[in-house]
Amino acid sequence: MTTATTNPRVLAHPAREEIRLEGVLHALSDAVRLQIVRDMVRGEGQEFACSAFVLPVTKSTTTHHFRVLRESGVVRQLYRGTTKLNILRRDDLDALFPGLLDSILAATEAQSARLGEP
Amino acid sequence: MTTATTNPRVLAHPAREEIRLEGVLHALSDAVRLQIVRDMVRGEGQEFACSAFVLPVTKSTTTHHFRVLRESGVVRQLYRGTTKLNILRRDDLDALFPGLLDSILAATEAQSARLGEP
Repeated sequence: MTTATTNPRVLAHPAREEIRLEGVLHALSDAVRLQIVRDMVRGEGQEFACSAFVLPVTKSTTTHHFRVLRESGVVRQLYRGTTKLNILRRDDLDALFPGLLDSILAATEAQSARLGEP
Repeated sequence: MTTATTNPRVLAHPAREEIRLEGVLHALSDAVRLQIVRDMVRGEGQEFACSAFVLPVTKSTTTHHFRVLRESGVVRQLYRGTTKLNILRRDDLDALFPGLLDSILAATEAQSARLGEP
């Protein structure tokens, strides 16, 4: 079940069985969110503050992107002190959709190489 | 380059090199469009009239979904007489993003099986 709470410091997340492919694909259908996930994979297992990502968008837009990633089940967000940390839910995604995340990441790398992007 | 035209019977498509991962993921982030692509894969190599799909949406919504699939480069649409036919652009997608379409289709099947859907 969803972790519903009235405590603003505890953020709602879909449980593994509530994660939907459509939501995951939507979350990853944006260049900025793809970049976030790519950066997280490169530092896998780590917890990332939103501010750790160098993104070409405003802070409020960054917050929006992380919210989409959280609500779709792609990342887990938790507070440590006043800092919101992000963790890729690779275990959940791989259990539900084996190979999907890797193929999307490979496609991202292929496209970046093709278009001459970093 | 995009096949731009003023002839309303010839529909605009992105060329292979114009297809973007973000657009493909967006096109596939909808349950109806995923179902369309899944049905096309089951009858691969064939041309499908929009009316060949049994979808839980109106005709105008169906037209919209096929337009999203066409503009993202997932399907090719052409007129044969007064019928609009749809062909999955698997060659283009596989060339750009090897394994991506298969992994998304596998994820769709996994989710349907898990949720007890057809």
